[in-house]
Amino acid sequence: MGESLNGLKRTHMCGEFRENNIGEKVTVMGWVQRKRNLGGLVFVDLRDRTGILQIVFGEKIDDEAFKKSDNIKSEYCIAASGVIVKRESPNRGIPTGMVELKGEFIRIFSESETPPIYIKENLDTDENIRLKYRYLDLRRPDMQRIFLLRHKTAKTIRDFLDEEGFIEIETPMLGKSTPEGARDYLVPSRNYNGKFYALPQSPQLYKQLLMVSGFDKYFQIVKCFRDEDLRANRQPEFTQVDMELSFVEQEDVMDVNERLIQRVFKEIAGVDVKLPIKRMPYRTVMERYGSDKPDLRFGMEINDITDAVKGTGFKVFQNAIEKGGSVRAIKVQNSASMSRRQIDKLVQFVKDYGAGGLVWIEYREDGVRSSASKFLTEDDTKKILKKMEAVPGDLILIIADKNKIALESLGALRVHMAQETGILKDNNEFKFVWVTEFPLLSYNEDEKRYQAEHHPFTMPMDEDIKYLDSDPGRVRAKAYDIVLNGEELGGGSIRIHDTKLQEKMFQVIGIKQEEAWEKFGYLLNAFKFGPPPHGGLAYGFDRMVMFLANTDNIKDVIAFPKNQNAFCPLTEAPNVVDKAQLDELGISINGSKNLNKDD
Amino acid sequence: MGESLNGLKRTHMCGEFRENNIGEKVTVMGWVQRKRNLGGLVFVDLRDRTGILQIVFGEKIDDEAFKKSDNIKSEYCIAASGVIVKRESPNRGIPTGMVELKGEFIRIFSESETPPIYIKENLDTDENIRLKYRYLDLRRPDMQRIFLLRHKTAKTIRDFLDEEGFIEIETPMLGKSTPEGARDYLVPSRNYNGKFYALPQSPQLYKQLLMVSGFDKYFQIVKCFRDEDLRANRQPEFTQVDMELSFVEQEDVMDVNERLIQRVFKEIAGVDVKLPIKRMPYRTVMERYGSDKPDLRFGMEINDITDAVKGTGFKVFQNAIEKGGSVRAIKVQNSASMSRRQIDKLVQFVKDYGAGGLVWIEYREDGVRSSASKFLTEDDTKKILKKMEAVPGDLILIIADKNKIALESLGALRVHMAQETGILKDNNEFKFVWVTEFPLLSYNEDEKRYQAEHHPFTMPMDEDIKYLDSDPGRVRAKAYDIVLNGEELGGGSIRIHDTKLQEKMFQVIGIKQEEAWEKFGYLLNAFKFGPPPHGGLAYGFDRMVMFLANTDNIKDVIAFPKNQNAFCPLTEAPNVVDKAQLDELGISINGSKNLNKDD
Repeated sequence: MGESLNGLKRTHMCGEFRENNIGEKVTVMGWVQRKRNLGGLVFVDLRDRTGILQIVFGEKIDDEAFKKSDNIKSEYCIAASGVIVKRESPNRGIPTGMVELKGEFIRIFSESETPPIYIKENLDTDENIRLKYRYLDLRRPDMQRIFLLRHKTAKTIRDFLDEEGFIEIETPMLGKSTPEGARDYLVPSRNYNGKFYALPQSPQLYKQLLMVSGFDKYFQIVKCFRDEDLRANRQPEFTQVDMELSFVEQEDVMDVNERLIQRVFKEIAGVDVKLPIKRMPYRTVMERYGSDKPDLRFGMEINDITDAVKGTGFKVFQNAIEKGGSVRAIKVQNSASMSRRQIDKLVQFVKDYGAGGLVWIEYREDGVRSSASKFLTEDDTKKILKKMEAVPGDLILIIADKNKIALESLGALRVHMAQETGILKDNNEFKFVWVTEFPLLSYNEDEKRYQAEHHPFTMPMDEDIKYLDSDPGRVRAKAYDIVLNGEELGGGSIRIHDTKLQEKMFQVIGIKQEEAWEKFGYLLNAFKFGPPPHGGLAYGFDRMVMFLANTDNIKDVIAFPKNQNAFCPLTEAPNVVDKAQLDELGISINGSKNLNKDD
Repeated sequence: MGESLNGLKRTHMCGEFRENNIGEKVTVMGWVQRKRNLGGLVFVDLRDRTGILQIVFGEKIDDEAFKKSDNIKSEYCIAASGVIVKRESPNRGIPTGMVELKGEFIRIFSESETPPIYIKENLDTDENIRLKYRYLDLRRPDMQRIFLLRHKTAKTIRDFLDEEGFIEIETPMLGKSTPEGARDYLVPSRNYNGKFYALPQSPQLYKQLLMVSGFDKYFQIVKCFRDEDLRANRQPEFTQVDMELSFVEQEDVMDVNERLIQRVFKEIAGVDVKLPIKRMPYRTVMERYGSDKPDLRFGMEINDITDAVKGTGFKVFQNAIEKGGSVRAIKVQNSASMSRRQIDKLVQFVKDYGAGGLVWIEYREDGVRSSASKFLTEDDTKKILKKMEAVPGDLILIIADKNKIALESLGALRVHMAQETGILKDNNEFKFVWVTEFPLLSYNEDEKRYQAEHHPFTMPMDEDIKYLDSDPGRVRAKAYDIVLNGEELGGGSIRIHDTKLQEKMFQVIGIKQEEAWEKFGYLLNAFKFGPPPHGGLAYGFDRMVMFLANTDNIKDVIAFPKNQNAFCPLTEAPNVVDKAQLDELGISINGSKNLNKDD
């Protein structure tokens, strides 16, 4: 039971054997994928992180090894030694399939119970079981490949940024809580009972301080934390590729980053990214795609058909236009024969995005059908079809509403229809786009004030600074997102380095000086001492790896992820702790006193 | 005020100019180290992270730039353009001293108040001021160099381990609290009120799980946390270089790690580390150096003089020997004429280590003096001097006590005397040693039981397993520390991969099965499924950087460190948080209710 190495040395990894190894005396170590006893012969498929090698034990090869080999079962951890020979019946399904190991020696390091999940590719076992037995789930070859890929991706990023003169600097995990943005994870202080550290949501303020310090080019691949209710593909702890540069403008940040993207996608996924990556202003992508994360792998762009429908007298259109809204439409190809039920679902879909309704026109070979046929003349409909350059087979989906609602709901509908019609099936494209010229501010209807869209240190565009007082909503920011296939891969901005402009910014968003100092005092203090012009960008590293590994589940790219409740089924964290620990921290669990009284 | 780049591009870094740049038209950006107005000329020393360049502005060069340059002060952030010219009076103190920039253009990005600390090398300002204005402290060239060095060190480690087939895998920050070892930092859970995550003290259990998963070779450069009262050179969050390997024995782990050390010390510090690094068993280093972290840069080894003094009749010696102790001594060269006060201090020093007293012999040219002259004959003394191979000028320091006390106090005294006598002054050696064969267990007198010296998963040495029942204290572990110049750089062990042996181990240290499962259940569970033989090592990365950067203050190698109270003078973390935040977490601050009542 439980043999040791005792000087035994591994000579090769399982996956590396080819015909040129024939005749070599080797030792391999790994896990039993499969064992078959064919009477006088025992065949073992041995697996390590590089692949699988067939080993054959037999009475005539080595009787002792043969007998011992018959005791092993799946997932036993063993070593085997012997000579590599040509396989009589090659297995062309695996890279080592031309050869096999004649097993002259076997050592059993450890036994295994029957694993509760299959150790194989593309397992569709319940996710909670996979997470509970994560150490077995991670044995599966597809998972092994993902973490090798993740490692290589981080390595490629670090190599590139190092070549470009960036310095990786670690910023604190135990930082200051600021009541801004998402919820912080708090860490009670033992030395200062009643006070708390916060785990960082991002190293934003620290990296700006590092620019004030003159580090010139900083980066970090770093864990960040958000205590949010977890939507799909969010994790309480996630990894950012964070960077900041001094003496740069927006184009400089974009330049180095698109070269970074080019390098990573080439080295890791073999994808050629053509530079420069297309730039599109926020306003344009909203008009054409109804999203600041446009998926450019397909067309189906949003059209403004307001002018074409102006004269129709159709009240739905008229009302929207009169209220300052518009009428917008997308054209879905080869979809002119949807069922009533399918259409109803689309209506419900856009309602979830706030749209009052959805008008549809089916342009069939045998004529035109429309949900608005009672209200639109044949001529009206023709006008719309002409404006949309429709051909038979097209489905036109129209929303008349406030601009924002019309655009956002059609934007979502566009993506939905792409999925429904399967036009992205087997599409392996990587369509990058820089979205630029984001609004600096948005109006918060509840609080009756403007607020920073990005964060309050984002630099306005030079030509828009003049509107800061008169028309804040019009001011665009030096902010930019890198979007890939409809998802935000990263984003950043040029920061304000001028104290006067910063004060103005706080004034516009209604943060009093006192409040600004309480929240960001140490950064504002630092800015008194010659801050350089600077800007940066941060990527969601987990998401980047998801793209590169071609998975749509963030848990596949994190070794030990939490479930939707931020619970770890493997370690069962979070867990209860001793009262003595809490006493030292000077905190109590609410209700626990009462519980004790009731005992 | 607060000009922007507006298309201005930096062409060079300040520190890179040499005579071959003469005639080039360039633009530099950075901070004003110094400005002197010599009437018609203004001289500016401009600093960026690469060094300093002298810029000269003058009426005759460009009048507008000249006038503007007169407004600038120290630490203003500016850009300057012009032509590189030969300097009339070269400054051989700086690398760019042969040339200067004729300033034809200046842009002032931002002004600076007078900095509260000097931006210069080797500042001896109060540490709290330095930490409060850390962004200025980090501008100092020595600090800039340290963080560049830290970056390069991490890069070199990653490059090496990647070449060796290691995969960097991120393990969770939000883990499970285990009431073992040091105090955990806790993170209250919002989803499970009353439960807590713990920040990791090390990724130990996760990396063992990764071995069970078949990742074969794992590493990570990762933040770890310990909520301890801070001794000098400890920080609540620190960085580990952590690794684990499967199918290896102790020598394999040591082999790859000494090659890693060789690479790092060569590339970063230009130091040649000869391999293999010396190995010394724990027992030997304790006998010879009285420490498991021996400083091998100097001799002054501990001698056992028990036999030489056995017949003396001196009660101090006799008592120690009779109680099973021994008499041990070190020889301090060129120190035979210490003052009474100096000697008294040494006596006090060893008393702090538990020694009952200290016997000294001064071997002077003019004779021998000794604290025990009343009790030792001239012959006795000669015997001791002979045993110690003493020559005139030597000071012999003797302790007679239990072995452990005699050795540990002489070990500390040895290091102390090395410092006192200055024999390490200007010593630039890097003396590495592997300390091996550590005791597996130590006896806890309070709890009347053996406990794991390292952690309970450490593998005993094969030849000692037989003593686990009969003489647990005798069992040595497959554990090893890499020690440099008297400090532990890293340590690790081979782990138990056999369930039966693991159970035995828990039994020996008196951990009941139930308790073991509660604490380490997920690892024990994992070990049911074919765990491989495995072992690893972890370095204190901050300490490694301290050695490479030649600093003895850990705060010098951490960008934003905490002070001795785990407080950040810069951000003022930890701080108070809103009651609403605590309510969501279901916790209260002790005493806060009473405070409210009193309001």
